[in-house]
Amino acid sequence: MKIAKTPTTPYYAVIFTSTSSDNQVGYEEMADKMVELAALQDGFLGIESARDEIGITVSYWKNLESIQKWKMNMEHQVARSKGKSMWYAAFKVRISKVERDYFFDKKRPNQF
Amino acid sequence: MKIAKTPTTPYYAVIFTSTSSDNQVGYEEMADKMVELAALQDGFLGIESARDEIGITVSYWKNLESIQKWKMNMEHQVARSKGKSMWYAAFKVRISKVERDYFFDKKRPNQF
Repeated sequence: MKIAKTPTTPYYAVIFTSTSSDNQVGYEEMADKMVELAALQDGFLGIESARDEIGITVSYWKNLESIQKWKMNMEHQVARSKGKSMWYAAFKVRISKVERDYFFDKKRPNQF
Repeated sequence: MKIAKTPTTPYYAVIFTSTSSDNQVGYEEMADKMVELAALQDGFLGIESARDEIGITVSYWKNLESIQKWKMNMEHQVARSKGKSMWYAAFKVRISKVERDYFFDKKRPNQF
């Protein structure tokens, strides 16, 4: 997992924050599969994910239409349904428009 | 760390994604201090953070002015300077406007 290389703003971010249930059987496999599948969708720009006490996954998209189409993807719907019935205790989804961004790289500190 | 209880949209999210350098001396203490200090600022709405291969911290704010004021906070500037010189190999900051959100709680699945 790396910092996503997204294009110039504006673009969209879907911020998905979750807490896990006690049952994590099959979760990792499905999560990996969904990352692979998302990457194939029109308008997908990148994804970032980290998990300790809570999980945070941020996926980046060209526009609201590409987010809506991904939400309607059949395999994704099955995964989301299993997420609700099995893997997640709670989650919040936030659809946001990235207006500005900047990057710092220690190897090139003067660009910041 | 819990899922942040944010107000109704719109509001702003600052998505901070980072990779760590080899030197993490003093990082945890400063990170905790900055979360405490951020929570005292005008317009602060909540914060979520998780870290494994990469770190993701999302802080939520009432508007762009409150984000700008937090960026200019003196103690925060010292922390950011140390972050660049010591703790981070690279990071990306994305300022985004949350347009829609929804919440799922397994204890109350029908609200979704």
